[in-house]
Amino acid sequence: MCYYMNELRKHIEELISLSDAEFVSVSSYFTMKQYKKDEFLIRQQEKVPYTYFVVSGLLKLTYTDASGKEHILSFAMEDWWETDYLAFNSGTMATMSLICLENTKVLCLTLKDYKALCAAFPKMEHFFLQKAVNGHIASQQRILSLLSSNAADRYAKLLKRYPSLLQRVSKSQLAAYLGVSRETLSRLYQ
Amino acid sequence: MCYYMNELRKHIEELISLSDAEFVSVSSYFTMKQYKKDEFLIRQQEKVPYTYFVVSGLLKLTYTDASGKEHILSFAMEDWWETDYLAFNSGTMATMSLICLENTKVLCLTLKDYKALCAAFPKMEHFFLQKAVNGHIASQQRILSLLSSNAADRYAKLLKRYPSLLQRVSKSQLAAYLGVSRETLSRLYQ
Repeated sequence: MCYYMNELRKHIEELISLSDAEFVSVSSYFTMKQYKKDEFLIRQQEKVPYTYFVVSGLLKLTYTDASGKEHILSFAMEDWWETDYLAFNSGTMATMSLICLENTKVLCLTLKDYKALCAAFPKMEHFFLQKAVNGHIASQQRILSLLSSNAADRYAKLLKRYPSLLQRVSKSQLAAYLGVSRETLSRLYQ
Repeated sequence: MCYYMNELRKHIEELISLSDAEFVSVSSYFTMKQYKKDEFLIRQQEKVPYTYFVVSGLLKLTYTDASGKEHILSFAMEDWWETDYLAFNSGTMATMSLICLENTKVLCLTLKDYKALCAAFPKMEHFFLQKAVNGHIASQQRILSLLSSNAADRYAKLLKRYPSLLQRVSKSQLAAYLGVSRETLSRLYQ
């Protein structure tokens, strides 16, 4: 309990400050869960009850196409928020899955509680606005990279931004994130 | 003046309501500008002073790579907000350009005024959070589409979502958005 909440508080207080009493109230909106490696938090074609804050561990947000080929939208590690945002916000079925690459601890927030939290604490609305803007910036950069860069550039950028990822993720997972074949990625490793 | 502000008010009031007095105050943060077709609102390698709300017209957010090849991240039409979000929020130089495809009227907001507006009107912070979440959803869908769909699927989805675009944008611009060659796109038109 303490560990989860300490991590959440440190994370929120990077952007806004909260009194002890405020944080007790804020934390009451969240539910703790832990998952083993390979477990699903979100499954394609099912409902998405939560948005997740990663306390420890590593997740992949992934899409498996009709031919069974996997495409990885993002890796979510400590201090990341992740979900299938379209399904979470609109109540439609997930088009992506969210799966543990390591044993993972998360804090979960339902859409109803997310809205209630923002209504009760305008500071939290400000916090989520910053996070949403940062998420939008990261997505815009990733679109730019997918449209314009070759695989070698994308690989170099990824390692520069997340140097620890190479130790935590298999080469086939990296290839599915970069949008290249396993063989192309192997050549980049040389 | 009236036209710009009526459009802004209709747009904001899709998500929140404002009294006449509140709207007069909100609108005072914005500056009106109009541009001719082919003019630049943002230029790669220059500062990004504003985020833009499109009142009428059509913009493209675009990146020209070292070889001179153009890649289009998005088309921004009526009721869209667009900018180079990384450069706007961090004060760094633009990595993309924002260019008029038609004569275009916009309302401009500086980062300082955006922050002041959110601080003065928590309702506007709520409004911008919704817009940022919607932008993040749209980006997540576009990443998914770039990773997993073929050109024909991407073309079909684009036309379903923005049926008017085909009349407003040249085939070479559509190809630069879809990430395919002009020749591949021509085959899809058959």
